[in-house]
Amino acid sequence: MIHSRVHVSDLREHVGRTVSVCGWVNTLRLQRRMQFVIVRDNTGMVQVTHKRDGGPLEARLEALTPESAVRVTGRVVDAAQVKLGGLEILPEEVEVLNPAAAPLPIDEHTGLEQRLDWRFLDVRRRPATQLLFAVQTTLEQGMREYAYEQGATEMHTPKLMGTASESGAEVFKLGYFGRSAYLAQSPQFYKQMAIAAGIDKVFEIGPVFRAEPSFTSRHATEFTGVDVELAWIDGVEDVMAFEERMLAHAIAKVADAHGEAIAEHLGVEVTVPTTPFPRITMAEAHEILRKGGWDPEGVKEDLDPEGERSISAHIKEATGHEFVFITHYPVGIRPFYHMRPADDPSVTLSFDLLWRGLEVTTGAQREHRYDVLLEQAAEKGMSPEPLRDYLNAFRYGCPPHGGLGMGLGRVLMVMLGLDSIREATFLFRGPNRLTP
Amino acid sequence: MIHSRVHVSDLREHVGRTVSVCGWVNTLRLQRRMQFVIVRDNTGMVQVTHKRDGGPLEARLEALTPESAVRVTGRVVDAAQVKLGGLEILPEEVEVLNPAAAPLPIDEHTGLEQRLDWRFLDVRRRPATQLLFAVQTTLEQGMREYAYEQGATEMHTPKLMGTASESGAEVFKLGYFGRSAYLAQSPQFYKQMAIAAGIDKVFEIGPVFRAEPSFTSRHATEFTGVDVELAWIDGVEDVMAFEERMLAHAIAKVADAHGEAIAEHLGVEVTVPTTPFPRITMAEAHEILRKGGWDPEGVKEDLDPEGERSISAHIKEATGHEFVFITHYPVGIRPFYHMRPADDPSVTLSFDLLWRGLEVTTGAQREHRYDVLLEQAAEKGMSPEPLRDYLNAFRYGCPPHGGLGMGLGRVLMVMLGLDSIREATFLFRGPNRLTP
Repeated sequence: MIHSRVHVSDLREHVGRTVSVCGWVNTLRLQRRMQFVIVRDNTGMVQVTHKRDGGPLEARLEALTPESAVRVTGRVVDAAQVKLGGLEILPEEVEVLNPAAAPLPIDEHTGLEQRLDWRFLDVRRRPATQLLFAVQTTLEQGMREYAYEQGATEMHTPKLMGTASESGAEVFKLGYFGRSAYLAQSPQFYKQMAIAAGIDKVFEIGPVFRAEPSFTSRHATEFTGVDVELAWIDGVEDVMAFEERMLAHAIAKVADAHGEAIAEHLGVEVTVPTTPFPRITMAEAHEILRKGGWDPEGVKEDLDPEGERSISAHIKEATGHEFVFITHYPVGIRPFYHMRPADDPSVTLSFDLLWRGLEVTTGAQREHRYDVLLEQAAEKGMSPEPLRDYLNAFRYGCPPHGGLGMGLGRVLMVMLGLDSIREATFLFRGPNRLTP
Repeated sequence: MIHSRVHVSDLREHVGRTVSVCGWVNTLRLQRRMQFVIVRDNTGMVQVTHKRDGGPLEARLEALTPESAVRVTGRVVDAAQVKLGGLEILPEEVEVLNPAAAPLPIDEHTGLEQRLDWRFLDVRRRPATQLLFAVQTTLEQGMREYAYEQGATEMHTPKLMGTASESGAEVFKLGYFGRSAYLAQSPQFYKQMAIAAGIDKVFEIGPVFRAEPSFTSRHATEFTGVDVELAWIDGVEDVMAFEERMLAHAIAKVADAHGEAIAEHLGVEVTVPTTPFPRITMAEAHEILRKGGWDPEGVKEDLDPEGERSISAHIKEATGHEFVFITHYPVGIRPFYHMRPADDPSVTLSFDLLWRGLEVTTGAQREHRYDVLLEQAAEKGMSPEPLRDYLNAFRYGCPPHGGLGMGLGRVLMVMLGLDSIREATFLFRGPNRLTP
């Protein structure tokens, strides 16, 4: 007789009945008279208790190895002495659906890189990592909810491009039927094309590719970007307002669904941010930092990671807020398509969003006026020819617009207090890592 | 004074008030005494009516070009004689936010390829194409709703792979820091790795890449795949049941939100399918087709497009259903990782889903037993070494599982009665098309 699968977290409702539990052998305790198997599924752990009787079931339990996939059929009984939920399963049948080789290639002492080599075991065995993907799902759902409510359209823009248009550097090149193609560094040009196509608000979650030889804890060669682009804006303020509300909504949803589990498994409290987030200009940020003695070499216009952390700490102290928008980045460190205010052509109508000292978003109002865009490209030394398809989108009535690109892994990393983007991704990709 | 933007579809509520409308110049009718401008936004069209007075507004209206982006501020008045909603705007100010060059590079007589060259104008000017992306958004939302309800986790798997593992053919290759990487043809291996990682149900919507020199109306080199993978299944039937319910839920949502608009702009009725969908084996399909005189050269085991259309027509006639699962594909035309039934090793526990004669999904139960998987790979002449990372996932307790991969563009194409996948995508990518 086949018994339908019951999740471990639901076993309490089945005391006295015979059910099947599907999961992995978490631990084995094989004593002289008793055999104890802790079985884990994605909802929890349960003890399977068997008294040795010399039968085939005893032999089967004896041959189990940790992490084998098993289906255990047996009666659920109350057992106050059992710490795991005060119940146990008295097995009638144990089916090994997939035996695990022994020993396992990683254990709780294994370092990060080797854990990443065996990421599927790393994720399966650590509740904190399982939680990460549940949180990611909820976070995305929350961001989509907000975007849909605002009338956004979900787009899928090409990752294959005919020209390395954005800058030419840091772009992966591939063979394409006898010529070359390039992987999109972001959906930037295409989401702007969607705005020119009359889509009012564009929303996309998808992979972006950076051929950057960076080995920091916050860089990857492939990561998931959350991209938004909004038409008919009155200014970059509209973009920041959209982002802070989207984040507040999504973080509230995560706090609600997973707050307790995050506190338990990661020791981190998820705080729902108030809106609006604080905003300061880059000039103000520099002034604050210089007063604090910050004077890094070679970072005269931008912020280095230390500067970002200091500014966040300063804002946290001054306002209690974990987020801060840095606005008005100088022209020299922003791309040609960022709009510049009429009264100060030395800066751009752009922003970065920092969360606890880490940049999680870059955004801007885009220059939609064809002539100005041409001028700004020329000023950056860019030839218009490879940009032809992009520039054409501004010749036939492209409305004013602006948008943002957010790194999903970075948001998760900060939210969950993880040390590295490698831990905030299912399968990390970096200059030295293309596997598994 | 700045008036806040009102969408055209909401103007009726503002009769008697001064508002701003943001949109594009749809058509101009400049008469001797009157100037009429039809302005279109993403919710509809409205007439702007101006009596010539020799003033600056007259000159500005005279200089307008079709598709220019404008903000028109004026009083909304009742005008029973105006076909567009029985109202018009008497302009006080007309701001040209972005003038369109004239003439436009495409018009209603332009062929498909040139329309794709100017896709942003093609999409902006045709309500049917605007509708496509609204439908896509709702369809995805519906699929996610179903998947989330079933406990699915949204994953983002790498598109960059270290080896061209699935088959080696039809894979794009790129330079990667002095070595080679490959673009994923599907999330197949990685979503199975997520199953091995203890994720119960995996859901991903993302780009997939096929280096296939196909020029048909249903092939693309990059398209959006909807991927599902389910752990602990009892058989491939569980996968088909998931898919038919997910599709029925999502199609019902589309019919509800956009049914009327689809009928109006595309002349197509969206029918919500009943579940379960019909199922027939490939052997049965061949028998039916042969009775009907089908005898294509070189397609002894598979179905050619004509065969797919015939089978769908047959099922439609026999059962009234537009969908049909073809099951039990022969081993020879399925990949090594498809599971084979114990009682017939000549076929696989796999399926394709046809909708109105077009294949929209391929799915299967996967072989999760390491030894069997090795055998099946060897039988297909595959060397285990490039597959090492993949195969390792089955050595440590990977549970039974199965899944499906659906082409989002194909589903939209059939649902909306479009002639080509080129029309069902924002920016199509094919062997001859990498732009815009």
